[in-house]
Amino acid sequence: MTTLGDIASALALELRGDPALEIVGIAPLEQAVSNELSFVSQSKYLPQLSDSQAGAVILHPDWASSWSGACLLSDRPYLHYARATHLFDNRPVPTGTIHPTSLVHESATLGTGVTVGPYAVIEAGASIGSDTLVGAGVHIGAGSSVGEGTRIYPGVVLYHGVTIGDACILHANAVIGADGFGFAPGEARWEKILQLGGVIIGNHVEIGASTTIDRGALGNTVLEDHVILDNQIHIAHNVRIGERTGIAACSGIAGSTTIGRDCTLAGMVGVSDHLTIGDNVHINGQGRVTRSIAEPGVYASGTPIQPHRDWSKNAVRFEQLAQMAKRVAQLEKKLASLMESTNPD
Amino acid sequence: MTTLGDIASALALELRGDPALEIVGIAPLEQAVSNELSFVSQSKYLPQLSDSQAGAVILHPDWASSWSGACLLSDRPYLHYARATHLFDNRPVPTGTIHPTSLVHESATLGTGVTVGPYAVIEAGASIGSDTLVGAGVHIGAGSSVGEGTRIYPGVVLYHGVTIGDACILHANAVIGADGFGFAPGEARWEKILQLGGVIIGNHVEIGASTTIDRGALGNTVLEDHVILDNQIHIAHNVRIGERTGIAACSGIAGSTTIGRDCTLAGMVGVSDHLTIGDNVHINGQGRVTRSIAEPGVYASGTPIQPHRDWSKNAVRFEQLAQMAKRVAQLEKKLASLMESTNPD
Amino acid sequence: MTTLGDIASALALELRGDPALEIVGIAPLEQAVSNELSFVSQSKYLPQLSDSQAGAVILHPDWASSWSGACLLSDRPYLHYARATHLFDNRPVPTGTIHPTSLVHESATLGTGVTVGPYAVIEAGASIGSDTLVGAGVHIGAGSSVGEGTRIYPGVVLYHGVTIGDACILHANAVIGADGFGFAPGEARWEKILQLGGVIIGNHVEIGASTTIDRGALGNTVLEDHVILDNQIHIAHNVRIGERTGIAACSGIAGSTTIGRDCTLAGMVGVSDHLTIGDNVHINGQGRVTRSIAEPGVYASGTPIQPHRDWSKNAVRFEQLAQMAKRVAQLEKKLASLMESTNPD
Repeated sequence: MTTLGDIASALALELRGDPALEIVGIAPLEQAVSNELSFVSQSKYLPQLSDSQAGAVILHPDWASSWSGACLLSDRPYLHYARATHLFDNRPVPTGTIHPTSLVHESATLGTGVTVGPYAVIEAGASIGSDTLVGAGVHIGAGSSVGEGTRIYPGVVLYHGVTIGDACILHANAVIGADGFGFAPGEARWEKILQLGGVIIGNHVEIGASTTIDRGALGNTVLEDHVILDNQIHIAHNVRIGERTGIAACSGIAGSTTIGRDCTLAGMVGVSDHLTIGDNVHINGQGRVTRSIAEPGVYASGTPIQPHRDWSKNAVRFEQLAQMAKRVAQLEKKLASLMESTNPD
Repeated sequence: MTTLGDIASALALELRGDPALEIVGIAPLEQAVSNELSFVSQSKYLPQLSDSQAGAVILHPDWASSWSGACLLSDRPYLHYARATHLFDNRPVPTGTIHPTSLVHESATLGTGVTVGPYAVIEAGASIGSDTLVGAGVHIGAGSSVGEGTRIYPGVVLYHGVTIGDACILHANAVIGADGFGFAPGEARWEKILQLGGVIIGNHVEIGASTTIDRGALGNTVLEDHVILDNQIHIAHNVRIGERTGIAACSGIAGSTTIGRDCTLAGMVGVSDHLTIGDNVHINGQGRVTRSIAEPGVYASGTPIQPHRDWSKNAVRFEQLAQMAKRVAQLEKKLASLMESTNPD
Repeated sequence: MTTLGDIASALALELRGDPALEIVGIAPLEQAVSNELSFVSQSKYLPQLSDSQAGAVILHPDWASSWSGACLLSDRPYLHYARATHLFDNRPVPTGTIHPTSLVHESATLGTGVTVGPYAVIEAGASIGSDTLVGAGVHIGAGSSVGEGTRIYPGVVLYHGVTIGDACILHANAVIGADGFGFAPGEARWEKILQLGGVIIGNHVEIGASTTIDRGALGNTVLEDHVILDNQIHIAHNVRIGERTGIAACSGIAGSTTIGRDCTLAGMVGVSDHLTIGDNVHINGQGRVTRSIAEPGVYASGTPIQPHRDWSKNAVRFEQLAQMAKRVAQLEKKLASLMESTNPD
């Protein structure tokens, strides 16, 4: 049983209300009931407080007067909500044992408290750090190394020569270390460039379901600490992504591109190869990044969604835009000359 | 052996021709041979009838005079073609047995006629409905529940606490219930928001290969009955998709967005977070949906494909479009004033 | 131990320098050290030669005077670099044995030297050609056929009735032969069109991680020889892709579209259904291909990435582009009439 007092103490927050109140879970303001905790992350949600049935709320001290019920006062309510979720962790607890059906090569090394799920395969020379979870059916390639306290969900494939840091999470069916897409044009065929590099992933990195990170052609593909990747992202060979950069689902980064620190890429962003994106660059959804970006800031491309009838009329004009620009320039010239001729002095 | 009479009877269609004709399969008009069934779904394909070698054709009664051979008369030929394919089902038949290498937790419950493939893992407290197929290597997380008559192909991963309805199809390597992409900015790091919600998927839902559907942050991610999702789609946490909505491959729906009933999203559509899309909304391919859409209709964004030389001249003008609009407005003003001055009365 | 002489001999290239020099690997010009081989693929990289510590360099005879060290002279340095990578193959060597935990159906046929990894499942009637690798946990569906010398990495799923040629590479978690996305609108529900066709993949085809290739509805989905597909590509039912066409990551090809030979599609390209793309067509990244393309050449769509502030001003004007075109036409008409009236003769 968790009480409001337990939560206040775990989060080191000032409590207003009854510390003995039992809290069984967390819910949004409009759904929370009397034994649930909720939170207000931004002032624009304050009006929802009046109707909320929440047993307690995490909110900013400045907003405390808007709520007469129990609350936890925080100058960063969203961050403390994030921390509160860890008090209600409902994920199955790793067993800390090696399942008898798993196949761990005799030359592989495992730390203490490692969980290896059923039908997982750990190849020669691989190493798994203490307290790491290797889920059911996971494949750890020869010589690959995984740090401590990392979670690898079922179906993940690590090729050979891949390094994963500590406290990472790899979601189901992610693939790390497949060949980069490298071919030289030969005689009526592509000739494959063997991808001799590896992948190096830092600590506290999260990688979404079905995300793929290719091995480097010669050097390594690198994700620095605290990088967070959503599902179904493609990271090509020799890409480097800086600390704390977050990328939303379905984005793709082409080969040898470097992305700086503290960037955010929204969903379905495409970044071309061999570019350099600086720190603190933010790209909106479906951004089409075909040139390097040095300046921090927010960037976008594309056109807004419109009713098809309107869109099709505009789109056909886009195809003639250069011509329209010429016509405008010509109009300006003609008008200027006409104005001159009608005002000759 | 299937005869044309069998098919007419199974589909409850009027037959014109020899009911004893053996039919071994279905083929398009231009490829069908004398022991194959074909169909005409739209009148525009009628001209192809004259050259077709098909043994029999499903077509609309209005078109029957265009074809002198055997036929099945249907007021919905495409629908009856769909139903006819089920008479030629060539998928391997599930064994209805539990493979000895599968690992079914003692607390899991299985209905009658369930097939569990080799190396599948069904965790504690999970339940699988009658006649459901759990393919090879599938992972069913703790406490997850799958309805009756559902097919789950190899490599699918269901995390814990996921609910799948009856008569669903989940294609290979789909992932249901991975963590939503939720993080709070902390001190020089992202702090993970544990995703405490689940996924609820209705009946008659089809989910394509490598599609990922994340679990909710607090509440659930929900797909209603008869939703159909193609391959490699990403559905983020707390998304809700209404009945019969169909989404084509490579699309992505960001967090907390609600999509109505009877919508269709073409391929590679991106929908931003926290939007509401109404019923009967249709988005064209690569649509960039960044605002809510209430009105039914067809919507589009983007620009048409062009030869690169033309495109690049137009694209550079797009970057100056606001300026061009100003120049046009200025021209209008100047011209108006000039016209006034030359026609002073 | 590999010497520079060994490499010269293997690649049949003229050597300038000491053939006894030991070479332990390949590296880019700026990283290579004295026992590593490097290469100059284009003249623009020649300036980097002066600072390179490489033990030897593959370069064009015309550029030999720019480098005083050991070198291998090649009229196609990039192609010879590709070939040189094969002398430093660091991939784990397939064992050539059938792992005791794999399940090979008694009616399946295996060539000589086949490797079947742990927990792989090969269903009834399947055939695997000599020297092919079936990785850990791979699923080969009933009646599917794989040629000789092909590599199938862990987690790949081949449904039933799929044909893969010789010397192919299928990367981890790719799915071949899942159902195409075919449904007929029925009474308040979609009715599934069973996908009765298969997939036929030629020789020397490479398929990236998590790429999905659906089976045909009636006929087959076909990839001709030497096609190369990057990661996370979606190929819909009944698509046909011609020889040597290469497609970069995250692209999607909709149903029944035919793509010619020697095409290249950059990343995240979307191609609509039922189109015909000719030979030698090249589509830039995020291309939105909604019409057939007959003429060889380079094509593009979309708008350039811009600072959001500028983009939003331009994007709003795109929504009024047809109207702006009308205003320009009106200006032209008015101005012409004004010029006429001021110059009446």
